[in-house]
Amino acid sequence: MGQEQTAIRTITSIDVARVAGVSQSAVSRAFSPGASISPETRRKVLEAAASLGYRPNRIPAIMLSGRSYMVGVVIGGLENPFYATAIERLATALRESGLQVLLMHVDDALTLDSALDQLVSYRIDAVVTSLAIGSEAVAQALCALRIPVVCFNSSLVGPWISTVNSNNHGAGRIAARLMVERDVTRPVWLAGPTKNAASRARGEGFRMELQEAGIPETERIRLQGNDTYDSGYEAMRRLQERGIRPEGIFSSNDMMACGAIDALREEMGLHCPDDVIIMGYDNIPQAAWRSYGLTSFDQRTGRMVTRAMELLDEALEKKDSPFSRTCVVDAQLIERNSTARTG
Amino acid sequence: MGQEQTAIRTITSIDVARVAGVSQSAVSRAFSPGASISPETRRKVLEAAASLGYRPNRIPAIMLSGRSYMVGVVIGGLENPFYATAIERLATALRESGLQVLLMHVDDALTLDSALDQLVSYRIDAVVTSLAIGSEAVAQALCALRIPVVCFNSSLVGPWISTVNSNNHGAGRIAARLMVERDVTRPVWLAGPTKNAASRARGEGFRMELQEAGIPETERIRLQGNDTYDSGYEAMRRLQERGIRPEGIFSSNDMMACGAIDALREEMGLHCPDDVIIMGYDNIPQAAWRSYGLTSFDQRTGRMVTRAMELLDEALEKKDSPFSRTCVVDAQLIERNSTARTG
Repeated sequence: MGQEQTAIRTITSIDVARVAGVSQSAVSRAFSPGASISPETRRKVLEAAASLGYRPNRIPAIMLSGRSYMVGVVIGGLENPFYATAIERLATALRESGLQVLLMHVDDALTLDSALDQLVSYRIDAVVTSLAIGSEAVAQALCALRIPVVCFNSSLVGPWISTVNSNNHGAGRIAARLMVERDVTRPVWLAGPTKNAASRARGEGFRMELQEAGIPETERIRLQGNDTYDSGYEAMRRLQERGIRPEGIFSSNDMMACGAIDALREEMGLHCPDDVIIMGYDNIPQAAWRSYGLTSFDQRTGRMVTRAMELLDEALEKKDSPFSRTCVVDAQLIERNSTARTG
Repeated sequence: MGQEQTAIRTITSIDVARVAGVSQSAVSRAFSPGASISPETRRKVLEAAASLGYRPNRIPAIMLSGRSYMVGVVIGGLENPFYATAIERLATALRESGLQVLLMHVDDALTLDSALDQLVSYRIDAVVTSLAIGSEAVAQALCALRIPVVCFNSSLVGPWISTVNSNNHGAGRIAARLMVERDVTRPVWLAGPTKNAASRARGEGFRMELQEAGIPETERIRLQGNDTYDSGYEAMRRLQERGIRPEGIFSSNDMMACGAIDALREEMGLHCPDDVIIMGYDNIPQAAWRSYGLTSFDQRTGRMVTRAMELLDEALEKKDSPFSRTCVVDAQLIERNSTARTG
């Protein structure tokens, strides 16, 4: 072990080049993401590196080039399984592009500003964020970094900001059409937090389609939730207190829809789909669980991540010039028991 | 905007020092985690930095010190909500210690070896991992890095590896005692993947306690799952095919327990707790959802993360010397409807 210790501490790319019989720059290329090198040369380098216990050091290259191949990924709450899945897919896609994830979890104790300061000191190449916050101040803070920013389901606008959105508005319309088809009286919209831009767009599409179908505002119900299971449960209780027996509900996410399904059954004795139909958004794993069988809009995270990577690649190629695009991915309605036709 | 652009690109710590009226090293300390600096000096530096649009660059310091203040966090599947919550807590705790998370998601396409190579090239200070894999080869690969490694619920052993485990074995015994108290005939153990060290320990504690209580092996049932909802569902179907009507089940995690509860109801018409009692592990949010009301062992993630941070701090203080400790945190049984006393 003693000898190995010394070896690991002192082996450099020069040693590897010598053993592999290649140039030092070939060693460097073998360990650089996307660099041009023949498979044969790369094999020689990797074998020599392994035999010597050599580990490449990216820090000097970062210092010289200013590019770290790290992307700051800023996330909010992973308690929604949708975000957990999305972050895994994103991490995999970034890695396949030779990029690493410098993760920043922004919660109440940490503002986005201070998160960005910390990330930027590592000379990150770009920021990817799924935060639903959409203030002017946040957009300005992001653009001040002067590096590419890619947002998911966001209303942020700025010269450095690109966005990949689910077709939230279009999905809201589809949900409304299903309500109309099924002759639902007084369709219910269970909204997420008002600061959530995606939720606002879903509600707006739902509202507009119902309006156009001739269902007046007095015949529509809007309930406020906060994207959690508990808030969906509580929303149904408030409906019960008002003496309203719902026939059809569109929930801004699946977590709230699961809470609503449980409350409908436990508190009001109503079952899906016989008494009430319900639709959610995100297609989280729990939507497919037998207790719920929840019809839901799948955002097609895989496709959204692919689009995000394309935007990121394009933005990084622009080097120090601003780059801004918006990309919309249609959600796919996954129909399950909660909207099944009965009778 | 044009003027700002130039400013951001060229401002250095020397400019900040001049405007703040402090030394350049004071500027450096103001932006270094844990560095000694008076609040007044720090305030001056931060104000000057803000007014100039200065952004600190940690890369030169990493190059000189070899310390990046980045910790490589290696995760497996976030589809289990337990890991999603744990990673959030860990990210927050690391950040509060002035450390950043360089995230690596290891899946089938990426082996741990290649993940570690990528992480190490960024000169990470340490590795924290929740991967349940426990082979000798993995332990050797980790120790070859010669940096502190902290594992959760792992059986990995090595001079550089510290571990924080839930008291899996003890919890298994508690679950078994509940089975005995309730006069459960033929208690069922629903196991996670055999490579999962935590699951093995839970099953072993369960087995030993039942053994000591005089319940022979022929009166115990072992079902194999893979930690997913579907595998819990399927395990119950296999039980049904064997004509067995279970009275009590201990599931190695909550995901499988939720699948089991749904299968018991949908496929066998059995309800908790009247017909069968069931216990899970992890206390995921869904355990508290009304469709499940699942009794579960809470790992007390907050405490486990605190212990991990203590081990990490101690290991980092040792600099280049190996450090290895094991720490066990008792799980807390959260009793819900699925084991409620009836009649």
